[in-house]
Amino acid sequence: MDVPASVAEDVARQLIEDIGTGDVTGDLIDPAAQARARIVCRETAVLAGRPWAEECFRRLDAQARIAWHFADGDIVPADAVLCELEGRTRALVAAERNALNFLQTLSGTATTTRRYVDAVAGTGARILDTRKTIPGLRVAQKYAVRCGGGGNHRFGLFDMILIKENHIAAAGGVAAAIAAARRVHPGVFLDCEVESLAELDEAIAAGADRVLLDDFSLDQMRAAVARTAGRVPLEVSGGVELAGVRAIAETGVDFISIGALTKHLRAIDLSMRIL
Amino acid sequence: MDVPASVAEDVARQLIEDIGTGDVTGDLIDPAAQARARIVCRETAVLAGRPWAEECFRRLDAQARIAWHFADGDIVPADAVLCELEGRTRALVAAERNALNFLQTLSGTATTTRRYVDAVAGTGARILDTRKTIPGLRVAQKYAVRCGGGGNHRFGLFDMILIKENHIAAAGGVAAAIAAARRVHPGVFLDCEVESLAELDEAIAAGADRVLLDDFSLDQMRAAVARTAGRVPLEVSGGVELAGVRAIAETGVDFISIGALTKHLRAIDLSMRIL
Amino acid sequence: MDVPASVAEDVARQLIEDIGTGDVTGDLIDPAAQARARIVCRETAVLAGRPWAEECFRRLDAQARIAWHFADGDIVPADAVLCELEGRTRALVAAERNALNFLQTLSGTATTTRRYVDAVAGTGARILDTRKTIPGLRVAQKYAVRCGGGGNHRFGLFDMILIKENHIAAAGGVAAAIAAARRVHPGVFLDCEVESLAELDEAIAAGADRVLLDDFSLDQMRAAVARTAGRVPLEVSGGVELAGVRAIAETGVDFISIGALTKHLRAIDLSMRIL
Amino acid sequence: MDVPASVAEDVARQLIEDIGTGDVTGDLIDPAAQARARIVCRETAVLAGRPWAEECFRRLDAQARIAWHFADGDIVPADAVLCELEGRTRALVAAERNALNFLQTLSGTATTTRRYVDAVAGTGARILDTRKTIPGLRVAQKYAVRCGGGGNHRFGLFDMILIKENHIAAAGGVAAAIAAARRVHPGVFLDCEVESLAELDEAIAAGADRVLLDDFSLDQMRAAVARTAGRVPLEVSGGVELAGVRAIAETGVDFISIGALTKHLRAIDLSMRIL
Amino acid sequence: MDVPASVAEDVARQLIEDIGTGDVTGDLIDPAAQARARIVCRETAVLAGRPWAEECFRRLDAQARIAWHFADGDIVPADAVLCELEGRTRALVAAERNALNFLQTLSGTATTTRRYVDAVAGTGARILDTRKTIPGLRVAQKYAVRCGGGGNHRFGLFDMILIKENHIAAAGGVAAAIAAARRVHPGVFLDCEVESLAELDEAIAAGADRVLLDDFSLDQMRAAVARTAGRVPLEVSGGVELAGVRAIAETGVDFISIGALTKHLRAIDLSMRIL
Amino acid sequence: MDVPASVAEDVARQLIEDIGTGDVTGDLIDPAAQARARIVCRETAVLAGRPWAEECFRRLDAQARIAWHFADGDIVPADAVLCELEGRTRALVAAERNALNFLQTLSGTATTTRRYVDAVAGTGARILDTRKTIPGLRVAQKYAVRCGGGGNHRFGLFDMILIKENHIAAAGGVAAAIAAARRVHPGVFLDCEVESLAELDEAIAAGADRVLLDDFSLDQMRAAVARTAGRVPLEVSGGVELAGVRAIAETGVDFISIGALTKHLRAIDLSMRIL
Repeated sequence: MDVPASVAEDVARQLIEDIGTGDVTGDLIDPAAQARARIVCRETAVLAGRPWAEECFRRLDAQARIAWHFADGDIVPADAVLCELEGRTRALVAAERNALNFLQTLSGTATTTRRYVDAVAGTGARILDTRKTIPGLRVAQKYAVRCGGGGNHRFGLFDMILIKENHIAAAGGVAAAIAAARRVHPGVFLDCEVESLAELDEAIAAGADRVLLDDFSLDQMRAAVARTAGRVPLEVSGGVELAGVRAIAETGVDFISIGALTKHLRAIDLSMRIL
Repeated sequence: MDVPASVAEDVARQLIEDIGTGDVTGDLIDPAAQARARIVCRETAVLAGRPWAEECFRRLDAQARIAWHFADGDIVPADAVLCELEGRTRALVAAERNALNFLQTLSGTATTTRRYVDAVAGTGARILDTRKTIPGLRVAQKYAVRCGGGGNHRFGLFDMILIKENHIAAAGGVAAAIAAARRVHPGVFLDCEVESLAELDEAIAAGADRVLLDDFSLDQMRAAVARTAGRVPLEVSGGVELAGVRAIAETGVDFISIGALTKHLRAIDLSMRIL
Repeated sequence: MDVPASVAEDVARQLIEDIGTGDVTGDLIDPAAQARARIVCRETAVLAGRPWAEECFRRLDAQARIAWHFADGDIVPADAVLCELEGRTRALVAAERNALNFLQTLSGTATTTRRYVDAVAGTGARILDTRKTIPGLRVAQKYAVRCGGGGNHRFGLFDMILIKENHIAAAGGVAAAIAAARRVHPGVFLDCEVESLAELDEAIAAGADRVLLDDFSLDQMRAAVARTAGRVPLEVSGGVELAGVRAIAETGVDFISIGALTKHLRAIDLSMRIL
Repeated sequence: MDVPASVAEDVARQLIEDIGTGDVTGDLIDPAAQARARIVCRETAVLAGRPWAEECFRRLDAQARIAWHFADGDIVPADAVLCELEGRTRALVAAERNALNFLQTLSGTATTTRRYVDAVAGTGARILDTRKTIPGLRVAQKYAVRCGGGGNHRFGLFDMILIKENHIAAAGGVAAAIAAARRVHPGVFLDCEVESLAELDEAIAAGADRVLLDDFSLDQMRAAVARTAGRVPLEVSGGVELAGVRAIAETGVDFISIGALTKHLRAIDLSMRIL
Repeated sequence: MDVPASVAEDVARQLIEDIGTGDVTGDLIDPAAQARARIVCRETAVLAGRPWAEECFRRLDAQARIAWHFADGDIVPADAVLCELEGRTRALVAAERNALNFLQTLSGTATTTRRYVDAVAGTGARILDTRKTIPGLRVAQKYAVRCGGGGNHRFGLFDMILIKENHIAAAGGVAAAIAAARRVHPGVFLDCEVESLAELDEAIAAGADRVLLDDFSLDQMRAAVARTAGRVPLEVSGGVELAGVRAIAETGVDFISIGALTKHLRAIDLSMRIL
Repeated sequence: MDVPASVAEDVARQLIEDIGTGDVTGDLIDPAAQARARIVCRETAVLAGRPWAEECFRRLDAQARIAWHFADGDIVPADAVLCELEGRTRALVAAERNALNFLQTLSGTATTTRRYVDAVAGTGARILDTRKTIPGLRVAQKYAVRCGGGGNHRFGLFDMILIKENHIAAAGGVAAAIAAARRVHPGVFLDCEVESLAELDEAIAAGADRVLLDDFSLDQMRAAVARTAGRVPLEVSGGVELAGVRAIAETGVDFISIGALTKHLRAIDLSMRIL
């Protein structure tokens, strides 16, 4: 899995926030003492966050050794040992919560994503994330979505044109909006939201790279799939829940983008034990 | 509610992450166009995050006007209008998702906190958060916990001594650990985890400011409360769920610290509508 | 033109770099003195950089007034007055070089881009930039390319899949590489470099969103255009110079990406005059 | 060559900008695969930028090995191998463009500088840069100027007094301006711009450390050199082009400061090849 | 001694500030030359600042070796060798002043603290710092106070409730202020300033965790100690000088917080010698 | 007085450090309450730090009004009112300590500087600072030195060549060292340390811009002044105390650089009173 470039900076910020002026309880531990420890995953989960967790331990003890038993993206069974650690006791104890916070959060997102991905298995539909992310965590969450088998929708407002209702109204129609966007940003992927089959036709004719069906019923989705006949990928978004995702996928749409992957979070239950 | 000092920096980082090189779809909107908008809360929630949301709009349009109908900490009924906005259309559209991400995330934490606070209403117990937070969001989450009526446990490793099993083992007992910690950090609040009534006695005698009962049954908690007789506040932590929190509160303990407040997240359903 | 989110931070960094501990010559000027000034463009150019220049003056004098006679993207005739300024003399003098450095650099990139755009006028080809940018200036340069009428290729390694020779070799062929990339990053735009018409066929069949013709002769480009018949946009890259760009455009390819837009720089000749 | 202190931070920012959420094409390459590579310089150039290039590779693969065949400041013949690399294939591929951008940009500035330095060889004149730099790159560009054999003029407004026309007018004459500046900043190098031989005399008498001849003809420069007779170094600036620089140098002035060194940029043609 | 998490960032900022574009005199030294050096402490002092000094040398020469003869918190006799160094000569010379600035500043604070700590030796009183710190240095100064045997008062406005005159007036009395503060911040340590024995009674009854006696005479302090009888720790603050501190300590108060520890600074006389 | 460019960033960092997650006592104050306040200087001092103090109040209350009665550099009599403030009570209370810390620290440095400047009044000698500064505060301290009537020596290793014993040994003599430094850094001010009159002659002959007399007795200083006869400014440094500074100045040297200005700190006694 490709790793974000900001891992070192993410961890530096987190450690400054948590440790600040120093670990006031850590003084009880002999600075020279060494220990071994294990991180255990107490429920079945998809692992995500290894690079951040490693960096937490390494920043506090450059000589710490970490042996992982799983890779990011792996399904970890309940009570499995994620990794074994060896290093200065003080460093392990101070890094513990920081490393676990990254792992429990990102594995949480990966595990949730995996549920949606599994729910549509066998259909051609792919699960995507959205811009509904936790402030400050978008980069890492999008990594976790990939670990869970999902794909990333646009990163932000800058890397994909996504024409919505307001833009269509401002430009005077779907075709006009697409043409205007292409003029200024010719090399940028263009996704266009449509509200009817007529608008779908217009978007395809105007050359959209992908079309987002807004508030379509399942029957309308099937009609859109039939009419499009593979000329352009179709996407469904908006308020999709786990229970309903397979029915949508079976209409034949190509992408389902789901805010719930990244706006909610169920952290995975992990713990570190000093041996 | 006291506001963190980092709001401006939090929002600057978020906008750079989301808008980056510019809003490639925003070009479809006349740069001079003005609009009015509303943010609506689609479910009952405790509001949190106003300072961040405001800063999102103000950074993109210094002249934007925002009229709030609720304050942070207020209970907002479903479908209520949170605020009315007026400003440059492009700025409102570009700021929208950023502002909503702050509001939905922090109101989510405040609302969850409120459920626990309401569950213990009428007992003397207070609900606290923990260090199990989402990386990069601890400051804002602790603000949201306060908006929900909860209190903050230590911010990080630096602002409270929290003596746990490993420290007690390293120091050679509860009393020794407390004495050692006091020597180096005399002015710092000292919380001590204990595993038995005997250790509780020892911690009180050694002058702990608060004692954390680790893995006590409800009966043992009641016994601890009786024995302590108000000499020191008692805290319970570890795996507390909403269903069981009232029973714990009724044992008479003073504080219940709950990781679920900040490690999980159920975002509130909000939307912005351009009028 | 959509504006990057980092303008305030870009300018803060530049002013700290230039002014540092303070303008040691500025003390000769009465701190209360006010002045009017003009920025003049001494050669025909495409303007780019207004938001950065404005921020330079505003950071040093929050009350400074700037009246622009041109917008970013406008063609400015030689010796035209770009803008008129009014504010504290000290602030104008200290901001001058900083503002001019942004304007001369970004207008330089916009003007160069415009030459290429004009050279292909009337063909269907669009001019794009590349990742060959000046370190630290990519965001602003890509904005300037848009001001010059060009489009932006991928921003970095993260927002577009661009399969090259090394990736094809690693994956075992064009089709395998495309399929593998789609699996991990289903929602991301996919551009694929090909070295022959056979590879072009394979890339189209595998569903590339765009195909980059690597080291094709003009005849081969024409053959590729004919064979593709509009099924997918075609791109040409690599060592394109101004003299040769129209011939390439006339082969019928859709995009020509040009490192020279952003790796070289001919700054525009500007000056500020205190009146 | 003395190295700026900000190399690590410059590279961290660049990698975050380029790699962001991760290299989406890099996933096609086996994470464990190792490779060897070479960076080749395709035209004669003065090398500059080694510390930044090395840091690009090291940040992505701490174990990467780099063997350089040239030092910064060396003249590299066309098609020479700059360095040989060995490390994780993914890291080499992801770092490539980032490292090359630093090398091609800074070597470009060093090579341009060298042309001016060579043009004045044998005269006593030294070539200096100016504050006309590319935003965000001043530190690195001034390093590159030194690699090309040039010298650095003031770094910013804070490290040298440079009295110009506006300051002289504000202070009421050359001598008054110099005296006023010395009062507040006694230990700071003082350069004074003059417009006539009379002002030159006044500046020397008032104790300027260097005098800048503004808009002097070649004859006037010679007269100034004769009159000064080595009492103070003389500098010429403003619109100096390569063709005219030797004639200026031969007048006997000591320094020629040239905006073109750093405001324009002709990147050097480099490439990296995986073996 | 527990170490702040920001050492690496503190040093990076310092080196950028000091070395900037490069050490212009360092070029006189052969880049490959190696040297050995010693840091000598020319007066009796309490050492503080080792982690920062080490990081200064390591950032400029990753292979530098440092052998310390003292630990932070140790009393170093005059003319003792603090440490022996070995590394690249250029790096040692460039790092020297940066490392010494950290050591002389932080050891200065530690040494001053130690004087106050020694002055109250044998009493039960503990010496604490305040928020009267040098801008930008609070974290490091509080570390130095601990090295000197003192304790830390609150880190900032966020980690301890400190109710003062203005707050009591705003809330309508001591008891009301304490109750109001507890409601919003139940888990936070609460210190309350009082101006009379009556207010002291009120603060104890309302459950303050510590009481600060504001402007009490020595007799009043003794009365307060007698009346409190150990129910809550008592603190004295405000304008305490070294000469008077023992008399205060002998009244029986628990804590004496002293602005002079961190607002004034007498740097320790250190020097580095290249051997 | 010219103001550093980093004031906004200095204050942002300080407020984040002090206020962090929020002022936990500030909640006792009505968020809408307004107040007036005064900052009083309790001892005679030279004022320095206004821009930082203002920024502290403005960041917390953009509408706060501040009326200053003194400018930076003014001598303020004991018990004078420095400024009057009006704004939100909460903001004034939270900003108070932050603003005072800047003012007391920087006015302390300015006041100390002024003592040395006054001690040499009437001689031709000027007082300079050094690189012996408090980590993280160099920019602001050098500003304060100027407020006190002193001048700034080099800012860091990058803006002045300062040849010392080690460099002379490495280069093989004074003349060789100066020539080598000029070659690489021709436009940079060159100060050279000498240990004898012979070396002084050599340094002058080699064209140093200033010569630093290292460890000269008063008699030797006088001899150096006589021999130099104004050809180059002379500087004395190293362990200069207030008692001895006039005798040095009266030898006729031009500059005396003094580490004590910035390495020690006696903060000025200031307080803010809410009216």
